[in-house]
Amino acid sequence: MKYDELFALLRRRGVLWPTAEIYGGTQGLYDYGPAGARVKRLVEEAWAAWFVGLSDDFYRIDPAEILPEAVVRASGHLENFTDPEVSCAKCGNHFRAETILEKFRPDGVDGLSPAQIGELLKQYPVRCPQCGSTELSVPRPFNLMFGFDFGAAGGERVYLRPETAQSSYLAFARMWDVGRHALPLGIAVIGKAYRNEIAPRQVLFRMRAFTQAELQIFFNPASFPLPFASVEGEQLPVLRVSRRAAGEETPESRSARSLVDEGLPEFYVFFLVHLYRFFRDVLRYPTDSIRLFEKSDTERAFYNRIQFDFEVKLESLGGYKELGAVHYRGDYDLSRHSAGSGKDLSVVPVGRERLLPHVLEVTFGVDRNVWALADLGLVVDGDRTVWRLPSYLAPSAAGVFPLMKKEHTVEARRWAERLRTAGFDAEFDSSGSIGRRYARMDELGIPFCVTLDHESLEAPSIDARTATLRDRDSKAQERVTLDALIARLQASRVAPRPAPLNPFE
Amino acid sequence: MKYDELFALLRRRGVLWPTAEIYGGTQGLYDYGPAGARVKRLVEEAWAAWFVGLSDDFYRIDPAEILPEAVVRASGHLENFTDPEVSCAKCGNHFRAETILEKFRPDGVDGLSPAQIGELLKQYPVRCPQCGSTELSVPRPFNLMFGFDFGAAGGERVYLRPETAQSSYLAFARMWDVGRHALPLGIAVIGKAYRNEIAPRQVLFRMRAFTQAELQIFFNPASFPLPFASVEGEQLPVLRVSRRAAGEETPESRSARSLVDEGLPEFYVFFLVHLYRFFRDVLRYPTDSIRLFEKSDTERAFYNRIQFDFEVKLESLGGYKELGAVHYRGDYDLSRHSAGSGKDLSVVPVGRERLLPHVLEVTFGVDRNVWALADLGLVVDGDRTVWRLPSYLAPSAAGVFPLMKKEHTVEARRWAERLRTAGFDAEFDSSGSIGRRYARMDELGIPFCVTLDHESLEAPSIDARTATLRDRDSKAQERVTLDALIARLQASRVAPRPAPLNPFE
Repeated sequence: MKYDELFALLRRRGVLWPTAEIYGGTQGLYDYGPAGARVKRLVEEAWAAWFVGLSDDFYRIDPAEILPEAVVRASGHLENFTDPEVSCAKCGNHFRAETILEKFRPDGVDGLSPAQIGELLKQYPVRCPQCGSTELSVPRPFNLMFGFDFGAAGGERVYLRPETAQSSYLAFARMWDVGRHALPLGIAVIGKAYRNEIAPRQVLFRMRAFTQAELQIFFNPASFPLPFASVEGEQLPVLRVSRRAAGEETPESRSARSLVDEGLPEFYVFFLVHLYRFFRDVLRYPTDSIRLFEKSDTERAFYNRIQFDFEVKLESLGGYKELGAVHYRGDYDLSRHSAGSGKDLSVVPVGRERLLPHVLEVTFGVDRNVWALADLGLVVDGDRTVWRLPSYLAPSAAGVFPLMKKEHTVEARRWAERLRTAGFDAEFDSSGSIGRRYARMDELGIPFCVTLDHESLEAPSIDARTATLRDRDSKAQERVTLDALIARLQASRVAPRPAPLNPFE
Repeated sequence: MKYDELFALLRRRGVLWPTAEIYGGTQGLYDYGPAGARVKRLVEEAWAAWFVGLSDDFYRIDPAEILPEAVVRASGHLENFTDPEVSCAKCGNHFRAETILEKFRPDGVDGLSPAQIGELLKQYPVRCPQCGSTELSVPRPFNLMFGFDFGAAGGERVYLRPETAQSSYLAFARMWDVGRHALPLGIAVIGKAYRNEIAPRQVLFRMRAFTQAELQIFFNPASFPLPFASVEGEQLPVLRVSRRAAGEETPESRSARSLVDEGLPEFYVFFLVHLYRFFRDVLRYPTDSIRLFEKSDTERAFYNRIQFDFEVKLESLGGYKELGAVHYRGDYDLSRHSAGSGKDLSVVPVGRERLLPHVLEVTFGVDRNVWALADLGLVVDGDRTVWRLPSYLAPSAAGVFPLMKKEHTVEARRWAERLRTAGFDAEFDSSGSIGRRYARMDELGIPFCVTLDHESLEAPSIDARTATLRDRDSKAQERVTLDALIARLQASRVAPRPAPLNPFE
């Protein structure tokens, strides 16, 4: 679907809409409705089961989103978390320099100084995208953090965190004390991050408040024991810097082993494979839509030693979009926070020398992936629109309908209650024709519909009764008992999980 | 437990700690560690199952936490969401006027103007709580919202929402379109709210960022059909304004019916009973620790027509503390946002006249209740400390141990994996003596421990094998198969739910 069409559908069905819609919306902020909120929550749970479930030493925490100034000074965000901005002298609008230049510099302006960008603005025939004027300001660095005063006394400054990662670095010392005093140690956060984007756009892609799922793995660079053999044969769709330099845009299929042979560390490639498998096996993105896009020295943040972005091709947004990444951040974060806080964050793992752990970061944009699931999954199939969501990510396990409102509602309510008691979200719907109800469930991606009818009431007890089960994708129908239905739903709601890293000690 | 002792224990076990602890903490902000985050999430899910599950027309949404200025101007927060503040000319500290006066006015200063409070400050021999000086400023209204600039152009002002309720009012028009065009319609939000408290204290009780669970029920005041007969006999521990005026502080047991006979609307008492049952049946607070504390005209916000706070007696905080409430807000909210947004929020329910719905609000402080669960549940029992959490709120379903690390780890890992595949959090622990491991699980409230030993390995297959199951509360032990264990855990993880309001249409 096209962008406008997709957003209109999601908005109409109450999946998501602009915040404070009745006030005309708020730039870069969105509210999730009931179905959107459930899909988002299920994506988060699937991510946690996949990544946090990898090891007993990986923990999920829930820290506050507000950070004191000393933290963002130490992390470098106060100084460096900026986007070059250009304003138009005529219409007064503000733009990201990258946006203004994108026709002339499709690769972006990452790594260029405001002065260098100023040169480019002179070099190309750039115009204001809003009014067409050529009176554009020189670029200035615009800090993307939201900062505000804290406390009644004044003078204390805090910031909404620009990335969840910082919360995990702050928690490292505490989690070291709570844990087994062993590396690797993982700390995961699923939560909000905030950026004052100059030009928010593309709904869930450049938001000012968004949900990240990030895992920070603290490890000893001299020893990161992993079952690499279990992943070495995996084929990954990779676009390395060297091929990009040759003008290539499509990925090539590369084995995990061959990437290690080219010099990437095993621990890095291991998590690249795990993130790839999450996209392929849990979110079920088509493998030919995914590419692992290596960032060059100038494109990466200076503290990232290695970075591959996971990009997925989305029709609604006209190309590849970043949905996740693996960053090797070295010891940058813990050394900065050791210096900033005055607390030595080096540790002595059991039986080892003292060291300052390195960080491998697996990032994942939750909102972006909800959008990607809609883009890739919502299809027009003949006269209906179906959201082909994986069943364990669907907003409800099943819709439950009485065929006739008058005759079958009591029994349909009973079935819905039994399903809820068994732990399943069930959507009761008695309004309109069965066809219309199927259509509503199809649009929301609900994988099964159960209809109670005359035949259902023939058997004497609920356990002997049957209902019509209809499959979202095949539209096939069959009669099932309540027990068979529960067993079917149970299987449908389990997301795949990888084998844990520490099955045998 | 005493306050300090309780917080120290929770901090040491990684349940929660001050945000940016390595930087000395941040006033009024806390991070939840793995166990705390899970308890919090399970409390939220139990709340949603109880309240949102009440009706097909009750929806849970997930809206942004940032509100544009027009919204908080319309809601009255920009003008009125203030706390009278007093500063000390000598030491420079800032205090809530209520805190300064609490020795002299134990009922607080709600409803008094800054001028009236100024009179009280002159009347009583008040001193600065920090330095003892008598040089206190006249009270000034201090707005409790965090506001900041939004966007690159400047001039646009937004606020972190001071209550989740506002997000539901903003969503009403959209949810009306998405829903069945019928009242009552419920919109629930579980999420962060933010207040720049002058003097944050008591850990999770007066925070600057906190999680609320709030249900807004939009209804027709002329017709709110409810099965009141199903609750009329319920006895509630009530402290009405009239008895408070007579100096009473303890509640009296009153039937729901008798409160209606005294003039409270049935719909109000119905939800009072439901919130009471949630505290009693789901959170399992001792009924003799709960009181339903009616707020007087001067204590309530002016738009609240009826307000009973749910207070629970907590040893760590030295008395009754508010943990939830039911507010009858009339049509204040929708009329303010109709005026503020210019969008008419009145509706025409199917078969009815046009009306502006009234709002009944059920509020619940998630963090406060996590603290209450710790206060009421964490007890010293002989030589051990046990957190007697309801099993469905425990951070994990079970601990799984190898009796001997060398011999039994493989089998214990297998059992833990089977439990995870069946959908249960399982805590694997192989370090220290079994007694120490039991002690760790007891402190975290984990209801069952399963130990794999020599006897476990005697049977040929995992399904025939048995392990020792140990109960947290009774310390009783028995042998169980994996199947029996899974059945036991399944039953233990289901929180009670009330009968839905619309089983038969």
